[in-house]
Amino acid sequence: MFQVPESEIAARLRMFQALLSTSGVDAAVVRQNTDLYYFTGTVQDAHLIVPASGKPIFLVRRDVDRAESLSPIRPVVPLQSLSDLPPVVEAACKGFVPRRLGMELDVLPANLLFMYREKLFPDQEIVDVSLLIRRIRTIKSKWELEMMRLAGIISKAIADAVPQVLREGISEVELSAELQMVAHRAGHLGLGRCRTFNMEVVFGHLLSGPEAATPSYFDSPTGGEGFSPAFAQGASERRIRPGELVSVDTMACWHGYLNDQTRDYSLGAPPARLQEAYRLSALIHQRFRQTAKPGAVTGELHDAVWQWVREAGWDEWFMGTGEQRAPFVAHGLGLEVDEFPLIARGQTLVLQEGMTFAFEPKFILPGEGIAGLENTYVVRHDGLESLNPASEELRIL
Amino acid sequence: MFQVPESEIAARLRMFQALLSTSGVDAAVVRQNTDLYYFTGTVQDAHLIVPASGKPIFLVRRDVDRAESLSPIRPVVPLQSLSDLPPVVEAACKGFVPRRLGMELDVLPANLLFMYREKLFPDQEIVDVSLLIRRIRTIKSKWELEMMRLAGIISKAIADAVPQVLREGISEVELSAELQMVAHRAGHLGLGRCRTFNMEVVFGHLLSGPEAATPSYFDSPTGGEGFSPAFAQGASERRIRPGELVSVDTMACWHGYLNDQTRDYSLGAPPARLQEAYRLSALIHQRFRQTAKPGAVTGELHDAVWQWVREAGWDEWFMGTGEQRAPFVAHGLGLEVDEFPLIARGQTLVLQEGMTFAFEPKFILPGEGIAGLENTYVVRHDGLESLNPASEELRIL
Repeated sequence: MFQVPESEIAARLRMFQALLSTSGVDAAVVRQNTDLYYFTGTVQDAHLIVPASGKPIFLVRRDVDRAESLSPIRPVVPLQSLSDLPPVVEAACKGFVPRRLGMELDVLPANLLFMYREKLFPDQEIVDVSLLIRRIRTIKSKWELEMMRLAGIISKAIADAVPQVLREGISEVELSAELQMVAHRAGHLGLGRCRTFNMEVVFGHLLSGPEAATPSYFDSPTGGEGFSPAFAQGASERRIRPGELVSVDTMACWHGYLNDQTRDYSLGAPPARLQEAYRLSALIHQRFRQTAKPGAVTGELHDAVWQWVREAGWDEWFMGTGEQRAPFVAHGLGLEVDEFPLIARGQTLVLQEGMTFAFEPKFILPGEGIAGLENTYVVRHDGLESLNPASEELRIL
Repeated sequence: MFQVPESEIAARLRMFQALLSTSGVDAAVVRQNTDLYYFTGTVQDAHLIVPASGKPIFLVRRDVDRAESLSPIRPVVPLQSLSDLPPVVEAACKGFVPRRLGMELDVLPANLLFMYREKLFPDQEIVDVSLLIRRIRTIKSKWELEMMRLAGIISKAIADAVPQVLREGISEVELSAELQMVAHRAGHLGLGRCRTFNMEVVFGHLLSGPEAATPSYFDSPTGGEGFSPAFAQGASERRIRPGELVSVDTMACWHGYLNDQTRDYSLGAPPARLQEAYRLSALIHQRFRQTAKPGAVTGELHDAVWQWVREAGWDEWFMGTGEQRAPFVAHGLGLEVDEFPLIARGQTLVLQEGMTFAFEPKFILPGEGIAGLENTYVVRHDGLESLNPASEELRIL
């Protein structure tokens, strides 16, 4: 089976330990699925104990054998009961009693934190190390970029399948189902992991016609009616007709690594204004590829993109309408949909090589529809490189 | 669009307010997607303020218009900034300053709780009301049972499609993808919401042949290799051959309501022992339908099922092998995969009419494979009623 290389895991742990040291945290207890996968190479029912210095211990309740076969970390120690945790943490700290423990307080539920604090670590202070972890995860290694490029090949398979599957009268939900099957066949894992509380991604937003401009609660430029009030966003039962623009925004997952892509299609010529909007989106991409370089400040990049849109006279419809605007033009992604950097107003994070994000300058025209191109990019020394080999043309079928 | 009836919402809120009153909680602030859907009829980016007595207020950041069209709750109040929350809570409490506020501390991340506690409600005590909410959600209304029955019709569509799709050489992942498409076409929403931290469900477990007995970290009798260490469970790239047992365990979702089902298949005759195990699983179902009545204690039901299995001489392989056993024989489900009741050792919850759970007596035979039937049941006055109309026969194709 596929494995995360040992050198990857070792480098990640080295960075984490360095940050724990400088932050005065004696040891971290990593518990969340995505972070476990990042630091161990597998998701198991486990705690990863990372001391600020010394050897990490992978404490696994279940499944111990599979943890050993899928992760390069040694030792893998079986956990029978949670009361085993404090002595193992102490052992990882080479016998000294740790005072400050780090956990992922951005995702750990409050009741679980209380349990760790009161029952297991009454003499320790538990502090949040989620920002340290997220900071490390922000810069992708060469291997990780390769994973995201392979996810981009799934995205291409999806984009290439649309002309075969899109036909008059097909519903958004059906088209989405067919494309999910294409994605699964191309290796899509079926996950779109999110870090933010309450955030849920189900494959993406496949939206068509004027109703595509329907806003939703989801923090994104596009919303959509959805199929149900239980998940009031994304594809609906609406049937696609000729002359409508169809926006295919999909989240592909290759062994946990994500690739977010939007391509637009139509059966026959789409409305001229949407065609123009798509062209503008593509032009903004071209310009942004040169502008978003290491050293650029994310908040300033956001404002620059808005400035280009204003100059083109399209700001009324950019990233939403009225008060329903997405506050960002790009969101970081990798193992989760909502990583750093967020390219949004007021953000001060500075771009560095190896950062990845989905850039989605989109136009929402009430009563007409939506249009816009989205690629997953990596920051290189001279600008952005797309991880999406799919054609960027608006496909008129 | 589909809507949750106003009478449902009203009844749920009445029960919640009664429990808040008797628990001495002045008001609850409901935030989690599933609970919002349950109490308002829609998932939006919102807080639902439920005072112990008086009118609830649906405080919506986004999308206000859609909240108004999808939810019967009035008033819907737009939230501009989180600092609007405390005055609205006070208004809902008819102007008196609440002292004890309830939140869902089993799912709310620790950092978010700190924010509510320190920035917004420094003078209030925030207590956990998740058990109150989960208790109400345990008893399904007639309407909810109808939703779960409709989800069962999606499960039937999946089961009925297997004979058309299963062929020699198809991989588990491909078969799973084809069945997901069938499910989507039948109205499956593509969600399998979980309450437990780190729990993730992707459609279900489609497992075949001897490797089906591979255990995983997932808290369930079956595991499977999976396709990736990023999600080391479920369908793999293994190709299905004649004479193997194929276990199709799927999670269908109709407007948020779940139906969990397992049916077994084979191309040609499967191994005799697995056939026998499937037959025994079906017999256990028959017996359990009569035994699991209102008044039965869940822990005792669990032990009774184990007793039947011991009498049949199959306990060595029941619900796992060695130390890898699922501690339950059934898990509650409804809007989430992990609701009450849990029919597990030591549980003291007493069955009541209207409770629903997935009963999955399964046999795991290392080196041979897995077998077992699973239905979603509702507790009626005289025993269990299945919400799964799909044929329960082992299908030899």
